[in-house]
Amino acid sequence: MTDHRTEDLGFARVDLDRARRTGDAEVVYGAGKTPQQVVDILRTLHEAHPDRAVLATRLSDEAMAAAQAAGAEVDSVARAATLGELPPPRGTVTVVAAGTSDAPVAAEAALTARVHGAGVEVITDVGVAGLHRLLGVRDRLEAADVLVVVAGMEGALPSVVGGLVGVPMVAVPTSVGYGASFGGMAALLAMLNSCAPGVTVVNIDNGYGAGVFAARVARRAAPRDPA
Amino acid sequence: MTDHRTEDLGFARVDLDRARRTGDAEVVYGAGKTPQQVVDILRTLHEAHPDRAVLATRLSDEAMAAAQAAGAEVDSVARAATLGELPPPRGTVTVVAAGTSDAPVAAEAALTARVHGAGVEVITDVGVAGLHRLLGVRDRLEAADVLVVVAGMEGALPSVVGGLVGVPMVAVPTSVGYGASFGGMAALLAMLNSCAPGVTVVNIDNGYGAGVFAARVARRAAPRDPA
Amino acid sequence: MTDHRTEDLGFARVDLDRARRTGDAEVVYGAGKTPQQVVDILRTLHEAHPDRAVLATRLSDEAMAAAQAAGAEVDSVARAATLGELPPPRGTVTVVAAGTSDAPVAAEAALTARVHGAGVEVITDVGVAGLHRLLGVRDRLEAADVLVVVAGMEGALPSVVGGLVGVPMVAVPTSVGYGASFGGMAALLAMLNSCAPGVTVVNIDNGYGAGVFAARVARRAAPRDPA
Amino acid sequence: MTDHRTEDLGFARVDLDRARRTGDAEVVYGAGKTPQQVVDILRTLHEAHPDRAVLATRLSDEAMAAAQAAGAEVDSVARAATLGELPPPRGTVTVVAAGTSDAPVAAEAALTARVHGAGVEVITDVGVAGLHRLLGVRDRLEAADVLVVVAGMEGALPSVVGGLVGVPMVAVPTSVGYGASFGGMAALLAMLNSCAPGVTVVNIDNGYGAGVFAARVARRAAPRDPA
Amino acid sequence: MTDHRTEDLGFARVDLDRARRTGDAEVVYGAGKTPQQVVDILRTLHEAHPDRAVLATRLSDEAMAAAQAAGAEVDSVARAATLGELPPPRGTVTVVAAGTSDAPVAAEAALTARVHGAGVEVITDVGVAGLHRLLGVRDRLEAADVLVVVAGMEGALPSVVGGLVGVPMVAVPTSVGYGASFGGMAALLAMLNSCAPGVTVVNIDNGYGAGVFAARVARRAAPRDPA
Amino acid sequence: MTDHRTEDLGFARVDLDRARRTGDAEVVYGAGKTPQQVVDILRTLHEAHPDRAVLATRLSDEAMAAAQAAGAEVDSVARAATLGELPPPRGTVTVVAAGTSDAPVAAEAALTARVHGAGVEVITDVGVAGLHRLLGVRDRLEAADVLVVVAGMEGALPSVVGGLVGVPMVAVPTSVGYGASFGGMAALLAMLNSCAPGVTVVNIDNGYGAGVFAARVARRAAPRDPA
Amino acid sequence: MTDHRTEDLGFARVDLDRARRTGDAEVVYGAGKTPQQVVDILRTLHEAHPDRAVLATRLSDEAMAAAQAAGAEVDSVARAATLGELPPPRGTVTVVAAGTSDAPVAAEAALTARVHGAGVEVITDVGVAGLHRLLGVRDRLEAADVLVVVAGMEGALPSVVGGLVGVPMVAVPTSVGYGASFGGMAALLAMLNSCAPGVTVVNIDNGYGAGVFAARVARRAAPRDPA
Amino acid sequence: MTDHRTEDLGFARVDLDRARRTGDAEVVYGAGKTPQQVVDILRTLHEAHPDRAVLATRLSDEAMAAAQAAGAEVDSVARAATLGELPPPRGTVTVVAAGTSDAPVAAEAALTARVHGAGVEVITDVGVAGLHRLLGVRDRLEAADVLVVVAGMEGALPSVVGGLVGVPMVAVPTSVGYGASFGGMAALLAMLNSCAPGVTVVNIDNGYGAGVFAARVARRAAPRDPA
Repeated sequence: MTDHRTEDLGFARVDLDRARRTGDAEVVYGAGKTPQQVVDILRTLHEAHPDRAVLATRLSDEAMAAAQAAGAEVDSVARAATLGELPPPRGTVTVVAAGTSDAPVAAEAALTARVHGAGVEVITDVGVAGLHRLLGVRDRLEAADVLVVVAGMEGALPSVVGGLVGVPMVAVPTSVGYGASFGGMAALLAMLNSCAPGVTVVNIDNGYGAGVFAARVARRAAPRDPA
Repeated sequence: MTDHRTEDLGFARVDLDRARRTGDAEVVYGAGKTPQQVVDILRTLHEAHPDRAVLATRLSDEAMAAAQAAGAEVDSVARAATLGELPPPRGTVTVVAAGTSDAPVAAEAALTARVHGAGVEVITDVGVAGLHRLLGVRDRLEAADVLVVVAGMEGALPSVVGGLVGVPMVAVPTSVGYGASFGGMAALLAMLNSCAPGVTVVNIDNGYGAGVFAARVARRAAPRDPA
Repeated sequence: MTDHRTEDLGFARVDLDRARRTGDAEVVYGAGKTPQQVVDILRTLHEAHPDRAVLATRLSDEAMAAAQAAGAEVDSVARAATLGELPPPRGTVTVVAAGTSDAPVAAEAALTARVHGAGVEVITDVGVAGLHRLLGVRDRLEAADVLVVVAGMEGALPSVVGGLVGVPMVAVPTSVGYGASFGGMAALLAMLNSCAPGVTVVNIDNGYGAGVFAARVARRAAPRDPA
Repeated sequence: MTDHRTEDLGFARVDLDRARRTGDAEVVYGAGKTPQQVVDILRTLHEAHPDRAVLATRLSDEAMAAAQAAGAEVDSVARAATLGELPPPRGTVTVVAAGTSDAPVAAEAALTARVHGAGVEVITDVGVAGLHRLLGVRDRLEAADVLVVVAGMEGALPSVVGGLVGVPMVAVPTSVGYGASFGGMAALLAMLNSCAPGVTVVNIDNGYGAGVFAARVARRAAPRDPA
Repeated sequence: MTDHRTEDLGFARVDLDRARRTGDAEVVYGAGKTPQQVVDILRTLHEAHPDRAVLATRLSDEAMAAAQAAGAEVDSVARAATLGELPPPRGTVTVVAAGTSDAPVAAEAALTARVHGAGVEVITDVGVAGLHRLLGVRDRLEAADVLVVVAGMEGALPSVVGGLVGVPMVAVPTSVGYGASFGGMAALLAMLNSCAPGVTVVNIDNGYGAGVFAARVARRAAPRDPA
Repeated sequence: MTDHRTEDLGFARVDLDRARRTGDAEVVYGAGKTPQQVVDILRTLHEAHPDRAVLATRLSDEAMAAAQAAGAEVDSVARAATLGELPPPRGTVTVVAAGTSDAPVAAEAALTARVHGAGVEVITDVGVAGLHRLLGVRDRLEAADVLVVVAGMEGALPSVVGGLVGVPMVAVPTSVGYGASFGGMAALLAMLNSCAPGVTVVNIDNGYGAGVFAARVARRAAPRDPA
Repeated sequence: MTDHRTEDLGFARVDLDRARRTGDAEVVYGAGKTPQQVVDILRTLHEAHPDRAVLATRLSDEAMAAAQAAGAEVDSVARAATLGELPPPRGTVTVVAAGTSDAPVAAEAALTARVHGAGVEVITDVGVAGLHRLLGVRDRLEAADVLVVVAGMEGALPSVVGGLVGVPMVAVPTSVGYGASFGGMAALLAMLNSCAPGVTVVNIDNGYGAGVFAARVARRAAPRDPA
Repeated sequence: MTDHRTEDLGFARVDLDRARRTGDAEVVYGAGKTPQQVVDILRTLHEAHPDRAVLATRLSDEAMAAAQAAGAEVDSVARAATLGELPPPRGTVTVVAAGTSDAPVAAEAALTARVHGAGVEVITDVGVAGLHRLLGVRDRLEAADVLVVVAGMEGALPSVVGGLVGVPMVAVPTSVGYGASFGGMAALLAMLNSCAPGVTVVNIDNGYGAGVFAARVARRAAPRDPA
């Protein structure tokens, strides 16, 4: 069951070959792992791929501290860390967040996109209940190769942004809300039913997935001149 | 079991006293009733209250024709009819609809509010994916005593309107949509989770309920000068 | 991204302009914020609007203590605080609660309505299983400009109140219950399906939203004489 | 596989022994059966038990006509029929219905209870939005051995009745409603969460089940004097 | 708002009149109340009704200890307590439980029925996966005036018992289970869809409600001779 | 895109190789296909595998007639047809159905198992509300290599059978029921939560899947002597 | 309310400006519209934008015929039509479908992408239960600028494709299935939870939305050389 | 109520006869039991059946320690323990797990199958996003008498395995995932809708049930030669 493309750490068999198959960065999903396990996998992946950064997400406070002690760069808002040099940025992913409570998911998306080789911009606090802020950044939205739009509660932001610009967009529902938000279900359904065409959606709080997708699009984008 | 406040038509016991208790108009809910039953109840209520209009909603094509033949005024978009003179309008209910498919629910809300004694304005086709239309009617929104905002699919319109003006608002989710809209559930949840404060919600496609409520508010409103 | 209408506190960009746009009070949503953050936002908003009260809701015990130490008035049942002078009351919002467990949500609605400029009355413990209490307060219900009716479990109270009086009503489902109440879902659905016309609904436990809405209606209401 | 307690009609094996085991009447569930099948089973059961009535429920128009032609007594509101002499009534089941649309389910419950040996009274159109009707029949409610309370939409009637009297009660949610009533789910949940103690519930539209249960209770009840 | 039928304890208004209206015992719902509050309400109710027992349910360990110290009788399996003399038993409620995990709900039902004036028997560990136990108690099931059948997981026990005897039955789904039991939803749905006629259902884990209902039936039952 | 293992009929690309990979029979899923399409695929598969039977399921009346005209054997209860000689039976699949309404799903399972090479027995009308029938066939249940247990409504039969014998069992929920059965969801959840260990489940109404599975088990079973 | 950017047809206000804002094609959503309405909107949009194709989707048989008679090009599998010359293709969208029943949704996605300016390839019948077909087209998958992966039932195809190649992917769940597929919900949830990173999702059966999104990505992609 | 087939431990009545009826091992479900209770039941069952192993599942850390101290063999990944000698293995159950987070459920299934008399093999980390691993173990999959396939998130693995081999398969959804996985619901639905025929499913995280079932099949399987 052993092959040259995986390494067995006892508690996990690490796939050393994913990057070759998909062109993406290696990643450690930190939820449910001990700080030591996170650090061990980070190191193993980093040694196998010394030339590019490895990402760890969904880290506890303890895991963030352990990662930092092991030489990783920590993003405490995103609750994530990177080990190794970030790749040169190609294209632009612009991450847009509705409210301050959505910041951790937005930060995870932004860091993930950056680690996966894209340039990243972040625009926060542009919820639909204060349109003037959103209208004020329309040019920045249009300049992106791909947008990641993060919102909880009623999840209306992607529809409004999608009516303003024709840039490819990934919407990320967050679990911000209470009562009939059902842990992000309300925002998820809203985004799936957006009246603005061309909105795609990822799982609730899945900033990582949105970041991977957006980086893939941005890396392939032709240098921008007006579409 | 008989009293002076009801009349028994065999297939229904008609409440002749509701108007006195609540100040509202009498109404016939037409779904599941034969055209003849609709007409019979309309007439019974009209005879008991010759001084004010009676409303019938959710009418089939046949019931609309029968109501018209019986002297009622028919609104074919709202699938509703009125018998008797409309009351003088007090205050202003402004009904706002996101898309053309939402028109029947908006029309039901508008007619209901009018029958219940309010003045009514209607603004259609101002979905969130085309913000310029919505921004263009901001003054009209602010001039209302109460807003009824009708939207299906992702139901984002109430949040955007709620960010523009501080007028009391009732949101009506419609069953317009498909797939994960679940018959209006997505729009309903979005409206319940609106990030704009002060948005209240009625049942899916319940233009009638929104109209009753809005008229009650408008009738009581003081003559407008800037709040 | 900076403008004169917001102030950036590092952990939040505070909207200083919302009151001008909507006529409402400023508010801090305390859930998920540290006591210090709550106090900082309260002060920033208060300094920007020294002439009117600022509201903080969903406060932890620690945040309530910190707010009190900072000079705010604390309502421990509502788990809320206000900083600054309350506006003169216009109109009457009457808050009705079914059971003792619904008291916190009712108190949040009442305080919110008061901060937003309405006069407020509260009637508690008038559940449908003891009708004599409810019938005993019918005159007080009729005297209101708008009702906020708070109930958990089966959420039947709005229907019963709606059959008694024709006052505009906002129903607030609470998460009080267990088993098949599904965190307030049963009460929410009941209220959305009320057979009494003119009942509107807000999110589960959303006393704040109901209070904002009710105050908007009450402030605009003409001085009462029988509708 | 054959025994003396069943008879095989080809399309159904009829249980001739159920009455002995449970003391109830025999019944044919008509949904999905042809008129001829309904009549055949009615006759087979009637021949096996010539001394007591057999019940058929959920009949199509055609099945009702066929049953009538075969000598059965048809209740067109209940969409049900009986063949054979009804048993002498013991005790009193009082069926209470909220609205006219709930009449078919109430009628099914009433006929079923009667066929199963109970005396039956029916009170209709006593919805919670018109309390005066309900308060007017309080004495009749108290005189029952068991109540069957039928309601759709928000399903609030059982809670209100349960606050008035301490008679054992079965609540029957109906599928009357639209939108967020979800085919009777809203009423079902409301009844399960009733704040009035001692309310039990059957499946949506299950007048038959409520009738069987109520008759069992009524038949066993001691002759009434004030509990 | 004060009347002779309630007493205000500050944190609760206690209804002193419920017993007169319904014939039931007084009860304190202990969930969410402090031990002191539980004891205070117990005493207030006991003083108002020194002639009959008062019941407290859903008690924490601390509340059970406080109740005991205040002279109440505690049932630690049911997590409940009684203060005052139990009424003489009339009729027989037989409580049947499927598994050992269902014991607390069964005990709550049994104690509640006893406090409400019924005689009570309890049969445990008669799950459907071991039919021989159930068949062995058939005579005891038939001897009851009413059955309370308690089961979690797939909730099949009421259907099997309902096929054996024709005694009126209340089914109580419990939250025992995991995964797709959804906190008792699977058992609840199964019981609502029972193929055995005459099964009624209460909310998940609602032993109290089942006990109240069953006692009402048992108290009214005629002294048993074969139905 | 063409290979030797598929044949393109224009409206479908037929997989000629599945039998080699899995050892199962070829099958045509008839839902949504025209009678002519069903017949064309049946013939194509039969010509590619003249030595063994091909199965078509979920056929309309028209498709059954067309299949019969094309030389296929039709099972009108199962709404299925076979073309080609059935394989010799190995092992025994015993299909058990709770009610007469479950017969079509049971018949589909039985025919599918037979076509896939198993011997089949069918036992019907052994619902849990009449235990004596079920206990009367216990020996036949024990003699099977694998059981397929089909039930709608509350889906209790698999739990009861699983308590009687230790034979591997596949449970098939059916959509038989109404109201809170939610199209078979209640039965599905009950079966997933069975207290009898070793019960596995397939999709609602999926007699075909249960038959494939059961045949695979039966074909591999050693000739029976008491386990 | 009139402006130069819309034209009012009576039954709809047509947005003539969307293309300028987003760079996309104009589209008519045909569901619920009469054939004449479809044709009228098609013509109005075509006259406003004679230089590029207009798209109509979700057409009835009658609407397809009317569109064809009006000079439009009809795609009967996609149930869609185009009027006007298609734009030159830029980049490559590859549409992958799991089963033949998914073909209409795949065709809608393909035609939409083509109308929106992308080159399109389609690969069908590559379900996960026959991996050899999928592995055989790996090179074609890698050559795409963006993938649209269409699947019903368990919706597993996007996860498998996502493990093979790192191309940006939009997954489209379809309503193909029965029972516990809940109209496409099962496939939707599976795709949202894909273990392959970088999968985004649109609403059930929303081939149009996926096509718009994919075309936006493909149009912006740099001419391909290995990423 | 006592019989020779059960023993009463006070907190539980232990069924000493289950093995005779079903041929399975005895088992203690540890969730919610104290370490002492677990040990007491283990010992009671072991003394009644000294010749075969007894199994305890869902153990806390404390219960595992207590079981070990009492002489049981503990499997800390499966959170389970056995007391007594394992039976000789008959046939082969092969357990396949998608990811490392699924390991505990896979280990519970494996140990359960072994205790119930089957030989067991385990293959881990063969998720669908890395097909090469799965294709590399195809021969081992084909050599099994029955497969247990364990997966969380989108639950796609059973469909892919089912397309590779025709071995009977039980799929076990796990609660691994977040957001719209709804505690394993997404994986459960995917498995129930698998396009690969012959997949059966157990409850979420129910490794025990899958193990019992698989052992029953494996024990009965004829010694393998190519099916």
